[in-house]
Amino acid sequence: MPTTLTKLNAATSADFVTALGGIFEHSPWIAEAAAARRPFLNVTALFAAMTAALRAAPPDRQLALIAGHPELGVKLADLTAHSTAEQSSAGLDRLSQAEYERFRLLNQSYREIFGFPFIVCVRRHTKDSILREGERRLANKPGDERAIALEEICRIAALRLDAVVEAPERLAVHGRLSTHVLDTYHGRPAAGVAVTLMEICSLAEPRTIARAVTDANGRTAQPLIAGRPVPMGRYELRFDVGAYFAVQNVALADPAFLDVVPIRFGIADAEANYHVPLVVTPWSYSTYRGS
Amino acid sequence: MPTTLTKLNAATSADFVTALGGIFEHSPWIAEAAAARRPFLNVTALFAAMTAALRAAPPDRQLALIAGHPELGVKLADLTAHSTAEQSSAGLDRLSQAEYERFRLLNQSYREIFGFPFIVCVRRHTKDSILREGERRLANKPGDERAIALEEICRIAALRLDAVVEAPERLAVHGRLSTHVLDTYHGRPAAGVAVTLMEICSLAEPRTIARAVTDANGRTAQPLIAGRPVPMGRYELRFDVGAYFAVQNVALADPAFLDVVPIRFGIADAEANYHVPLVVTPWSYSTYRGS
Amino acid sequence: MPTTLTKLNAATSADFVTALGGIFEHSPWIAEAAAARRPFLNVTALFAAMTAALRAAPPDRQLALIAGHPELGVKLADLTAHSTAEQSSAGLDRLSQAEYERFRLLNQSYREIFGFPFIVCVRRHTKDSILREGERRLANKPGDERAIALEEICRIAALRLDAVVEAPERLAVHGRLSTHVLDTYHGRPAAGVAVTLMEICSLAEPRTIARAVTDANGRTAQPLIAGRPVPMGRYELRFDVGAYFAVQNVALADPAFLDVVPIRFGIADAEANYHVPLVVTPWSYSTYRGS
Amino acid sequence: MPTTLTKLNAATSADFVTALGGIFEHSPWIAEAAAARRPFLNVTALFAAMTAALRAAPPDRQLALIAGHPELGVKLADLTAHSTAEQSSAGLDRLSQAEYERFRLLNQSYREIFGFPFIVCVRRHTKDSILREGERRLANKPGDERAIALEEICRIAALRLDAVVEAPERLAVHGRLSTHVLDTYHGRPAAGVAVTLMEICSLAEPRTIARAVTDANGRTAQPLIAGRPVPMGRYELRFDVGAYFAVQNVALADPAFLDVVPIRFGIADAEANYHVPLVVTPWSYSTYRGS
Repeated sequence: MPTTLTKLNAATSADFVTALGGIFEHSPWIAEAAAARRPFLNVTALFAAMTAALRAAPPDRQLALIAGHPELGVKLADLTAHSTAEQSSAGLDRLSQAEYERFRLLNQSYREIFGFPFIVCVRRHTKDSILREGERRLANKPGDERAIALEEICRIAALRLDAVVEAPERLAVHGRLSTHVLDTYHGRPAAGVAVTLMEICSLAEPRTIARAVTDANGRTAQPLIAGRPVPMGRYELRFDVGAYFAVQNVALADPAFLDVVPIRFGIADAEANYHVPLVVTPWSYSTYRGS
Repeated sequence: MPTTLTKLNAATSADFVTALGGIFEHSPWIAEAAAARRPFLNVTALFAAMTAALRAAPPDRQLALIAGHPELGVKLADLTAHSTAEQSSAGLDRLSQAEYERFRLLNQSYREIFGFPFIVCVRRHTKDSILREGERRLANKPGDERAIALEEICRIAALRLDAVVEAPERLAVHGRLSTHVLDTYHGRPAAGVAVTLMEICSLAEPRTIARAVTDANGRTAQPLIAGRPVPMGRYELRFDVGAYFAVQNVALADPAFLDVVPIRFGIADAEANYHVPLVVTPWSYSTYRGS
Repeated sequence: MPTTLTKLNAATSADFVTALGGIFEHSPWIAEAAAARRPFLNVTALFAAMTAALRAAPPDRQLALIAGHPELGVKLADLTAHSTAEQSSAGLDRLSQAEYERFRLLNQSYREIFGFPFIVCVRRHTKDSILREGERRLANKPGDERAIALEEICRIAALRLDAVVEAPERLAVHGRLSTHVLDTYHGRPAAGVAVTLMEICSLAEPRTIARAVTDANGRTAQPLIAGRPVPMGRYELRFDVGAYFAVQNVALADPAFLDVVPIRFGIADAEANYHVPLVVTPWSYSTYRGS
Repeated sequence: MPTTLTKLNAATSADFVTALGGIFEHSPWIAEAAAARRPFLNVTALFAAMTAALRAAPPDRQLALIAGHPELGVKLADLTAHSTAEQSSAGLDRLSQAEYERFRLLNQSYREIFGFPFIVCVRRHTKDSILREGERRLANKPGDERAIALEEICRIAALRLDAVVEAPERLAVHGRLSTHVLDTYHGRPAAGVAVTLMEICSLAEPRTIARAVTDANGRTAQPLIAGRPVPMGRYELRFDVGAYFAVQNVALADPAFLDVVPIRFGIADAEANYHVPLVVTPWSYSTYRGS
């Protein structure tokens, strides 16, 4: 459960390391180094102390950190709580057989080439984009790839620290995915439209990410994705406009010209805002990347 | 192979019946009755003579005609050539297991209630709408349902006669489904966009109906469906706009915001014109029922 | 200049009446009646006391209040400061000759029929809608029209009191007119687009109401109209998209297909929110009533 | 009145020159030269003979042809019938005072610089684009400008010959401006919508070019401009959608959100097809350059 900077500043070194030892995978020595530099004015300063410790460490210690990461998409008994949550949020714990094979091959090829596991900040990706990213990185030079692995580790750490320490500021930049539905038959926001967000998977069935119903403003109470990076990948939004217009007593053809409206789109920038509205009548619709 | 009215007017009665004996399923007596009324000025007059013979026949003969129809979606060894073509055009020869079960149940329930097979003009329907239509008609009164069966038989016959006799006029009213793609990034028709039309099936995977590529006017060389009724049901058009814009050297995000754009719509009127255009940029699109 | 409820509660009766004597036109007796009922918990209570005094007054006193209002659109030497500001905000001080004639005729006909001046809450209307409203009301029964005049006087008073007393709550319901511009050529908000809002006048040239330039979010820093009712009437928004795309180095035809995009729309509900966005490329645009 | 190539081939030389002497302004010698080369297989061959005569003529004779053209926008007593029709079609016979002044200045400056009148194929231009074109050409070198004048003279001649000789082929490339209106409230073409096409003039009021009412297909019986080049310039289409929806018994606000919808656009290519549709509900619309 989350703690605060005040408590961390006041804690014993042992308690400090208990709280933050897992921010860097299996590497409590980074938290230990930071504990000695207390007090911290804010979480940014705390994180800076941790990454400074990482960068100051000798190469073999950095390599041990890299090597300590689990493989992605491969069920391991001893996954840390952080890793479990991360992999599960991307659906890596529920791979289709075809996906599992691709992940296994990627992990194996990567380890053969670089000698350490493939590391990526999972929360910025979908399954598809992890595979694409991994396959792209197979072509990198070993030295470059080591630097990239450390960078990804810092991204992972920032998100973990954000989750563990309650603070007014956020270390990781977030993105946002939101929608709204405008009914231009009646000239008002469409309230009560069921919206489903699905992740499109190359090697598996679409995966439901979020469900919501539009409110009186035609918006969902919460953005579909917020407070985190928006996983890069491909998505489909489904708007149940047939049911909506039927409830409004609009006479519809049978079957209705428009029933479930699917909008497929890609997210390429995990830290950006994507607003994907639907402007709809029983006979037409439009969508666009809004803001 | 098609014949002409001139040939039919000049043929022996036997040849006439050979040519048109199958217009009404297993009922050459209707062609025989029409043969005696030659010559016909046009196909409309020929068809009128055939339907007059049907309507003038005693009820048990009409009932035998109805009873002579095959069940839908159930492979029979002795299907007539007409029935085979009709059922195949609606995909009834390639049902999923779940569809097969629904068709079997429908046929069985229908026959138990009415004592004759369920008849519908298959070329006006998709698999889904045949099932819906059948299940709706189970609630009809026996007398009404007999009249409906005869009406459907005449619709089937009109389409068969259109196919068999080359003539300037058409007995059956046709519908049309067409599309075009406008590229409002460049302000011109989008040429070279791959378009796929799929039938959406409740109990099976989507079924590809047509493929086309847009020409210099952003249109397909032929309408996606024309020269026949547009089968009632639900469809999805898929436009490969990501590939199109890539070919145009438009810089796209990776993954592109828009790649394959799906448009789902329903056809409720088999004899109407449906134009479903796509107006698109790399970041937006709209569609509507056009004309 | 604005005062506060605290000051008004503490003021002498004379000062109280000095501050609020003009809330009801030429009728300080209403403020006097309210002064005696102090202290007020909030502005709503103060306003309730004033309208109660109005309603409790004998008919001839009410009539005197009605009769004390100036005619609209007719320059009078002795207009109160409140009336001057109200009439000027609707452009009644700068009428075209044709408008002046219509206002003169309306005032004259109204006074002939009802025996008192035509009163309407000017801040809820444009010139055109004042004329339409007046001409509609000529058909009313005298008793009804007197009640309507008192109702309009209370609407005027609420807006005046909102302006005079600084308070967290507002007596009058406000509306809002806003816009934003989305560039679906680039897939981002259109920043730096010059926007002009004009009132469309039946009997005069369009009148510029507001000018703004869109910011990085494609929005104007302030809504085009806010913090007041949106005057009912007809408007035109003009978006200078030709200049915008030229600045973005988009190659345009000469003349550009789209240069200044005008959007004409009507406001029928002065207390509603109207959002009128522009979704635009160099070759297309759409707009709708948004929220 | 139009003639035919057959008649021209058979005519006396004198009659031939009477018919075609005015194709090149005040220069019957070109028709005379062509007369000697008869018969012509088609109008293209006839026109080729005339332009060959022009190009083969000595420079002073070409210059005399150029010099024989009237000034634009300046009322002359002795304008040829062709010139009168051309100038009138562009509204040059009804200039505002400000336009007249600009044309006078342009003509004067042009003649001072080049020694001959400013010539442009008027049917490809609006008043505004003639002025812009003229002012642009003032910067040309005298030799280049002489070649341009001859080119414009050939464009004028091609359009004149198309008008005078009935033939299956056209010498001049035409453009087209068309529209259609789709009602996405009802999902059908909007029939009965009044459409007005206006030319936008920098120095005068908008000028009505065409009026039409949409038919059952939402189209106008004829394109708004066809069978000729589309004059380059700026236009406004006005669609009376408020009246249309009122006739359809759609409940509208008062004033309606959308009443007369104006669409402003520019034509840069006189020989292209411009389709400018309106897709509209009572609360939204979109337009685009279609095909």
